[in-house]
Amino acid sequence: MPEGSATNAVLLQEVGPRDGLQNEPAILSPEIRAELIERLVNARIGRIQIGSFVSPRRVPQMAGTDKIWRLLKKKDGVRYSVLVLNQRGVEQAIAEHVPHVEVYVSASETHSKKNSGTGAAEALSASKRMIESAVKNGIGVTAGVMCAFGCFYEGTVSVERVIEMASALDETDPAEIGLADTAGMAGPDDIKRAVDRVAQVVGVDRLALHLHDTRGLGMANLLAALEMGVRRFDTSVGGLGGCPFIPGAAGNISTEQTVAVLESRGLQTGVDVEKVHRAREMVDRLLTENIS
Amino acid sequence: MPEGSATNAVLLQEVGPRDGLQNEPAILSPEIRAELIERLVNARIGRIQIGSFVSPRRVPQMAGTDKIWRLLKKKDGVRYSVLVLNQRGVEQAIAEHVPHVEVYVSASETHSKKNSGTGAAEALSASKRMIESAVKNGIGVTAGVMCAFGCFYEGTVSVERVIEMASALDETDPAEIGLADTAGMAGPDDIKRAVDRVAQVVGVDRLALHLHDTRGLGMANLLAALEMGVRRFDTSVGGLGGCPFIPGAAGNISTEQTVAVLESRGLQTGVDVEKVHRAREMVDRLLTENIS
Repeated sequence: MPEGSATNAVLLQEVGPRDGLQNEPAILSPEIRAELIERLVNARIGRIQIGSFVSPRRVPQMAGTDKIWRLLKKKDGVRYSVLVLNQRGVEQAIAEHVPHVEVYVSASETHSKKNSGTGAAEALSASKRMIESAVKNGIGVTAGVMCAFGCFYEGTVSVERVIEMASALDETDPAEIGLADTAGMAGPDDIKRAVDRVAQVVGVDRLALHLHDTRGLGMANLLAALEMGVRRFDTSVGGLGGCPFIPGAAGNISTEQTVAVLESRGLQTGVDVEKVHRAREMVDRLLTENIS
Repeated sequence: MPEGSATNAVLLQEVGPRDGLQNEPAILSPEIRAELIERLVNARIGRIQIGSFVSPRRVPQMAGTDKIWRLLKKKDGVRYSVLVLNQRGVEQAIAEHVPHVEVYVSASETHSKKNSGTGAAEALSASKRMIESAVKNGIGVTAGVMCAFGCFYEGTVSVERVIEMASALDETDPAEIGLADTAGMAGPDDIKRAVDRVAQVVGVDRLALHLHDTRGLGMANLLAALEMGVRRFDTSVGGLGGCPFIPGAAGNISTEQTVAVLESRGLQTGVDVEKVHRAREMVDRLLTENIS
């Protein structure tokens, strides 16, 4: 068993229906996406990001996330969450009684401007207000830092900057702190260095990692984080969200591979990987049908 | 720089035209495969496995490897090699003046019987005779152990068994010793354990690793081997040889990802990754056209 871990249980959040589908050219209807989510929940996925509250003009793949939420048969013990990008999204989550939201802010000035139209400092203030209003309304929050291990535009991102942002977010009392390798830039040494420092501030038990397999280092980074005691990860059915045949494609680490690797190390997820695989076959078929 | 390394240079052998294409359902003509090889050599690939001398009834994808060899404009300094499976293959290599061959024997009894029709001990004796006759005829040889880190049928393979086989092969004076994770079973700890022990017998400088990305651990295993001082790897253009969307698929580690990871660690391969990428686009197109 890896060093630093107090438990054999690992919490996986499935992000295929959001980060995965959002990066696919095909657009799936809310009904189909709800069906996919039901299948993943039936595979004993305990945490799932069902979509994001974002303008359909900006991200048409995520249109109708509110409808998905209404369609779902909510299963006890499952954490359903929605990514929110602004105060309007938080208000929608409050109105729709969504139990968990995720709020991410970029550690990279350039990425922040391109992604949210504002600089990192302004985005951080806005995010803190968003988290505060969600928490006040009884919504669980994952507050996270994007580009925590490097930025496609700026290259290296300093660990000091990540600590500073994570500490600021933590003041708003979120349930957990996320660190995202948004651009898939991290190697295992970067993961160890940043996790070690950030964990000292927020506690390793509250740290969730969002990893991409852009350069094939996803599993290497997962292993590095496990060694540091991290037990919360975002994964995506079939590694959805980036074509493995295109360099620079940014697929999330795959749920199936992650479960296999964790189990080979004696760690448990509770996930039924065979059912995840069948859900993946459904997605592959739908994405192919909807693209042609 | 990783521990144990005496140099910044890493030798990559491109195995896409052999291990990659052999595992694809589409069959490409010798002319097309020769064209692919020329493109890869133009991308400054310094070592390339052009195919295997094997019965076309058994592996139709490899039919006409002799024709490919005759078609190729041989470029100075490039190591062209052919995988040979029996004495007949060695004789063909001698007759055709192929400069380098690879001879692999399985550390797993079950895999050996399924793969070559004989048990491991008998296959080892036959392989030693093959290597001796190749070496006697001035052909360079990579002598390797398949399933060196585990077997799909038998599970764990003991390091002692791998050392025993590698030592036996080494008596025949091959240029290098290969260790293949044939079934993609290895994790980084397995790599470190086996490489440490085998390197003590044959020398780390002569050790070449053949890794598969079956469970997404290919790059993690590459990093582990680099730490141990290994500087010779087989890679495959685009990770050819297994569909990333099918669990259990056994693609080799991708040439492009390997080059990117090595360069990020200050290691040089000399490979022009942009040209490799264009070769991959050609393969993807051809495989799709030939399958439908």
